[in-house]
Amino acid sequence: MKLSHCVAVAAMALTSSYALAEGPVVVNHQAISEQEVVASQDGWCKALVDISSTYRNDGEAAAKALAEQVIDSAYGYQMGAVLFKPTLTVNPQTFRTTRAGALSYFVGGDSNFPNDSGFALKEWTKCEPDTAAIFITGNSASTMGKVHFTDKDGNVTTVDKTWTFVKDDAGQLRIVVHHSSLEFTGE
Amino acid sequence: MKLSHCVAVAAMALTSSYALAEGPVVVNHQAISEQEVVASQDGWCKALVDISSTYRNDGEAAAKALAEQVIDSAYGYQMGAVLFKPTLTVNPQTFRTTRAGALSYFVGGDSNFPNDSGFALKEWTKCEPDTAAIFITGNSASTMGKVHFTDKDGNVTTVDKTWTFVKDDAGQLRIVVHHSSLEFTGE
Amino acid sequence: MKLSHCVAVAAMALTSSYALAEGPVVVNHQAISEQEVVASQDGWCKALVDISSTYRNDGEAAAKALAEQVIDSAYGYQMGAVLFKPTLTVNPQTFRTTRAGALSYFVGGDSNFPNDSGFALKEWTKCEPDTAAIFITGNSASTMGKVHFTDKDGNVTTVDKTWTFVKDDAGQLRIVVHHSSLEFTGE
Amino acid sequence: MKLSHCVAVAAMALTSSYALAEGPVVVNHQAISEQEVVASQDGWCKALVDISSTYRNDGEAAAKALAEQVIDSAYGYQMGAVLFKPTLTVNPQTFRTTRAGALSYFVGGDSNFPNDSGFALKEWTKCEPDTAAIFITGNSASTMGKVHFTDKDGNVTTVDKTWTFVKDDAGQLRIVVHHSSLEFTGE
Repeated sequence: MKLSHCVAVAAMALTSSYALAEGPVVVNHQAISEQEVVASQDGWCKALVDISSTYRNDGEAAAKALAEQVIDSAYGYQMGAVLFKPTLTVNPQTFRTTRAGALSYFVGGDSNFPNDSGFALKEWTKCEPDTAAIFITGNSASTMGKVHFTDKDGNVTTVDKTWTFVKDDAGQLRIVVHHSSLEFTGE
Repeated sequence: MKLSHCVAVAAMALTSSYALAEGPVVVNHQAISEQEVVASQDGWCKALVDISSTYRNDGEAAAKALAEQVIDSAYGYQMGAVLFKPTLTVNPQTFRTTRAGALSYFVGGDSNFPNDSGFALKEWTKCEPDTAAIFITGNSASTMGKVHFTDKDGNVTTVDKTWTFVKDDAGQLRIVVHHSSLEFTGE
Repeated sequence: MKLSHCVAVAAMALTSSYALAEGPVVVNHQAISEQEVVASQDGWCKALVDISSTYRNDGEAAAKALAEQVIDSAYGYQMGAVLFKPTLTVNPQTFRTTRAGALSYFVGGDSNFPNDSGFALKEWTKCEPDTAAIFITGNSASTMGKVHFTDKDGNVTTVDKTWTFVKDDAGQLRIVVHHSSLEFTGE
Repeated sequence: MKLSHCVAVAAMALTSSYALAEGPVVVNHQAISEQEVVASQDGWCKALVDISSTYRNDGEAAAKALAEQVIDSAYGYQMGAVLFKPTLTVNPQTFRTTRAGALSYFVGGDSNFPNDSGFALKEWTKCEPDTAAIFITGNSASTMGKVHFTDKDGNVTTVDKTWTFVKDDAGQLRIVVHHSSLEFTGE
């Protein structure tokens, strides 16, 4: 057996010269941090309020255009389907696994979903997540908690919400599961 | 440059002799299949009906013991917390991120959760998942759909349900997210 | 507590009508199968032989263009870096974490990598993986084994090779780890 | 549609009281950090030197017992197989996918592996990883670089090494891929 022998110090100096000086290249692919989850929740809330204010200021077409942009950047419909159970959908159109179903829920106006009046058009002025727990498991992360919506008259609606995210190739978190429900009041 | 040359056929014969004959060893660690998701849903339903019938036949203590066994084998509380929003919990005890909170929800009798009457004690005779969509992303898998519960009088209760599973070291799927809610009826 | 009661059969009929008839939508995002690993190994081998024959038939520029295409479609350099230790690189340029370093290894001709003569230009006519083991862990999969290269004179070179793959958003496996080494012969 | 209205401040106060005061429960399951990868590399090196010094001070049986302990805590053989290509194994016993094959490589003395003399018994006094790149992809992480081994006479042997880790249920990183090779010297 013949092993190559050399002085360690010399070998390491040579190696580090091409290894870009201070340390290894680190690629963080698909792994999700708590901070990214929190930022995505806040981003969803901000987007909802933005659609509401766009609707108020610029009308329905502008609100719809913004909603499409939000769905295309924040949800994972391009992966095949999203597990989306919005707060206020009714059977047999409870689940909105397609982009069209999600868009109709947020801004209405789709005759295929006659019960939708447009959740994002309800003139929300504030949206605040109040997270109970976050579960990160490698390339996906889930978060569950209350979300409080305040409308223009100051009334607050609270829902129970679960989101699961994955990270796309561009490093953007995308919602692949979204289950929202009104609080059960025991009545 | 010196490369080792030999006859390919001979090399492959030698190699395959120690590689256990028919092909490579394949380890399937943490990856989750659609079949496993479906089996876990069915297992949850069966467990719920089993707790109900144990309660009817053997009483509360036996039902509680079985519920503990179900929680310990089917949920992921030993990982730190589970994102569990049961169907009928009320604020401020909506989320049951601890084992104690889950147990109380299923069988009641815990003074720390005074509103719990024991969901699994409601004499369910049938439990049927009706899945809308499944999302598998490597080491976690989520499923969303209706679940229909039939009680001893034949009445059916339908809920909207999301489960997310991961696989533990023993190859067992464990629930790490569980969001359940009564159907919104538009009223 | 008021639960909605209905006939299970009716509910399921309604539900399944919008759930696209035969069953749930299943999204298989980032999860990797044994078949995909085997196909990617075979694809790598085919690409190597193709570059060799392109070099022979169409010259160096055509071979380089093909090599670029292969690297861009089969490796994950666009994620930030690839952990690539080719068979025949020498210290201090052992590791080829950049696309330029990989390209130079395969087709040579880059003055920044003066020792590279172009591994894919060695007129390989056959390339056969002989896998020892595959490890699939959710969104990544690794494979280890021998790879036998046959040149135009029928000489066979055998290397020990490890590849790790992830799946990109388009569903394509990409090499993120590639460690190749000549067999140790005990001398 | 009837939504529950309440004052947001009150709702959040109630919610946070049971949500354990400062924020959400965060479960970090299977996700791997750069720090954990670096610590595992250092741990492998320390274990190798420990086996060497145990061999010198306490003899072969003690070294073997320690090696078994190291393998059982640092590798993933209990998952089914490990993709292990040690530095100095020869065909047809190149790959050590079983625990017995790994143990024999480190401490020798197994007649089923007649070429093994025990890599960990070579009286190593120092072991230093010099990492080129780390790739983290959710629930697995890979690292590639040089490792420098110094023996009791001050001679240094350098190898090219790749490790892939997954995290077990107890939160411990385990080696599931290990490819090690002597540096190619161009001769």
